Amino acid sequence: MKEKIIELLKAKDLSGLKALLAEFNVADVSEIIDELDKEDAIIVFRLLNKDEAAEVFSRMEQDTRERLIEALTEDEIKEVVDKLFLDDAADLVEEMPANLVKKVLANTKPDKRSAINELLKYPEDSAGSIMTTEFIDLKENLTVKEAFERIRAIGKDKETIYTLYVTDMARCLIGIVTVKELVLADLDAHIKDIMEENVIKLNTLEDKEDVAKMFDKYDFLAMPVVDSEDRLVGIITVDDAMDVMQDEASEDFEIMAAVTPSDESYFDMSVVEHTKHRIVWLLVLMLSATITGSIITHYEEAFASIPILVSFIPMLMDTGGNCGSQSSTLIIRGLATGEIYPKDVFKVWFKEIRVAILVGIILAVVNGVRVAIQYGDVLLALVIGITLVLTVLISKSLGCILPLAAKKLKLDPAIMASPLITTIVDTCSILIYFNVAVALFHI
Amino acid sequence: MKEKIIELLKAKDLSGLKALLAEFNVADVSEIIDELDKEDAIIVFRLLNKDEAAEVFSRMEQDTRERLIEALTEDEIKEVVDKLFLDDAADLVEEMPANLVKKVLANTKPDKRSAINELLKYPEDSAGSIMTTEFIDLKENLTVKEAFERIRAIGKDKETIYTLYVTDMARCLIGIVTVKELVLADLDAHIKDIMEENVIKLNTLEDKEDVAKMFDKYDFLAMPVVDSEDRLVGIITVDDAMDVMQDEASEDFEIMAAVTPSDESYFDMSVVEHTKHRIVWLLVLMLSATITGSIITHYEEAFASIPILVSFIPMLMDTGGNCGSQSSTLIIRGLATGEIYPKDVFKVWFKEIRVAILVGIILAVVNGVRVAIQYGDVLLALVIGITLVLTVLISKSLGCILPLAAKKLKLDPAIMASPLITTIVDTCSILIYFNVAVALFHI
Repeated sequence: MKEKIIELLKAKDLSGLKALLAEFNVADVSEIIDELDKEDAIIVFRLLNKDEAAEVFSRMEQDTRERLIEALTEDEIKEVVDKLFLDDAADLVEEMPANLVKKVLANTKPDKRSAINELLKYPEDSAGSIMTTEFIDLKENLTVKEAFERIRAIGKDKETIYTLYVTDMARCLIGIVTVKELVLADLDAHIKDIMEENVIKLNTLEDKEDVAKMFDKYDFLAMPVVDSEDRLVGIITVDDAMDVMQDEASEDFEIMAAVTPSDESYFDMSVVEHTKHRIVWLLVLMLSATITGSIITHYEEAFASIPILVSFIPMLMDTGGNCGSQSSTLIIRGLATGEIYPKDVFKVWFKEIRVAILVGIILAVVNGVRVAIQYGDVLLALVIGITLVLTVLISKSLGCILPLAAKKLKLDPAIMASPLITTIVDTCSILIYFNVAVALFHI
Repeated sequence: MKEKIIELLKAKDLSGLKALLAEFNVADVSEIIDELDKEDAIIVFRLLNKDEAAEVFSRMEQDTRERLIEALTEDEIKEVVDKLFLDDAADLVEEMPANLVKKVLANTKPDKRSAINELLKYPEDSAGSIMTTEFIDLKENLTVKEAFERIRAIGKDKETIYTLYVTDMARCLIGIVTVKELVLADLDAHIKDIMEENVIKLNTLEDKEDVAKMFDKYDFLAMPVVDSEDRLVGIITVDDAMDVMQDEASEDFEIMAAVTPSDESYFDMSVVEHTKHRIVWLLVLMLSATITGSIITHYEEAFASIPILVSFIPMLMDTGGNCGSQSSTLIIRGLATGEIYPKDVFKVWFKEIRVAILVGIILAVVNGVRVAIQYGDVLLALVIGITLVLTVLISKSLGCILPLAAKKLKLDPAIMASPLITTIVDTCSILIYFNVAVALFHI
């Protein structure tokens, strides 16, 4: 597909190219333009028909958009911005460097410009920041026929026409009606008789992560957003909720791997940026790990007299870390999907402790038997076994309690994931190990 | 909300309860029923109106559904199953124990029963397994007015009416048209003149993970599914794609934490089931970690003459593991979101190596200075520094190459996450450490 486009570009067959582009979905076209070099990107973009150009533009990567804005004429920018949905236009302005923002806003119609500025006032991560103000509102005394006329009149430029919002004189939301209901209803029926009055709505300040959760739960195609006075100010559509869901999952994956999260994609980030996003946690965790090291130093006598003790350190550390990260990951994910709440702490802990006892015993027996056979030393097997059971108990307890505590304290539970838990559990397991060893071997 | 319902249940105020339930969204009602005990659950379920009951039913947890099926009369089951969407009915049958499946199918109309059986034939995880066969198809020679009549006639029981599928005589998909386009079009226009002919469609055997990715990319509300002869056999709606997306992310989180993934929710799984899902990987990793232990045994002389060497083992192991899991997590997530492909292996590796050099030098300098000051031993600082740089290089290389290799080999890249990488990197870092120490200290 991309090859064909490059071929046509080389052959300068622009009309052939234009015909080919018309066949593609906008998402595919934007992906291709993202991969072209600057000059080709502009040629291709200029061949798109006006209606599609804005949609393609809103789906391109940020750096491609910046290159295009630099290259386009003022009239061309005017055309694109005019067709952009308001939420996409606001995103564009928010992410663009100041000089380009100026160029964009100078070519935006005054009413759209002020609407964009309104959207930009909402806090980052709020429902207000991802909503669009382009929706269709109806009055309750309209008939179905009149409603269709209104949709026909103003529906073309709206992001969705499938949910319609019924408002009163004060612009407060009093009901919703879907196009499905309209299509199935009698043309003379009144909106007030078919609308759903128990509307599930969002507040502008709601966390966008909770917004995504609500879409997942209710399966809506769009949800209304109201301000503190219950006035309808915008809607959020399911595609934006889906993006939030993906972004939040990616963010959790990154935090849980001790990477500072970033909005930029892997390849867009430079080596220095990648380093910046990784080095902080590595330094913190590296220096914390030296605590475990100094505990070991403290027991120099023990491993000087029984050197084989040292060889079990990696196994104990890894097993403790793995047990802890199993628990913390399940809890962090459960919190993210709304399956587990901080109030469940005792229920969760009780479950984890029982799992830990079972897991600990199995690991201890398997390893104990191995050690007893390999080294013929039952006491050593006992030391390893006891340490394993206690380590698993502590690691699974910390693994479930720390994320729940973080959530309760309004911190991101994802911080309490594998790397941090591993470092804490290491210290515990080494302490347990040498204490048990010293006690049983009478060192 | 739940409290109010329990209050009304206690007061036996069933008409008050019925009125209250009518105000709630089906998703909320199903959540409440999930939490009630068996008898209350049945009372509440029986108070729902017929249309809502099926929707509530399809959203409940599996064990609640089983309890209900056990308790409901044959006529009640008939009513619920009759109103269930086909994909939900197929899910129900698939997840239910055999005796209940019998009870359900015995109360299903023959044509619906055979349709359910058709759906169940598709492989698990395929597009066919999550699609519904209830969609609206049109012929291309209809006018817009006739299309509306058809929607009105058959639309009520369809999961979505917003995308309509145009098929030819052989039931092959030749175009799609949205209700938005119909509403905005002239009533006398012909479907063939307004339909979109370049339809993006799915094959029944497509992996459902790829299906979710396509929804994320194209922002469709529904996508058509065709069989190998290009005949339209079903559609997938965005809410189901969203569920797949969430499930796939959860599955990745679990695999990456060395937990065998499960469809059941955290609290629904028993302690024994939890143990089963965690013990396998723990055993494998524990036994692998003994390799690192035996390498340490091999260098007994080294740490017998310089005991302080042992105290750096935790720090080196943790840092190696963390560096590796940073890289592997970014790559695994990139593969899952479609941002990175196996063909990018050299591009990724080149980036990771440069990041590793930067990160390694920073860590080595910070730790080297600390060691030199704390122990006044520059040679020791050098050993630690060199080991750190090499460990970071190896861990980041493995962290990016192993997931890409897994994907290439059609394995799940998520297996190559933190726990496995940590175990492998441990062995490498301990080997490097003692070799460098032996060489520099001339032990």
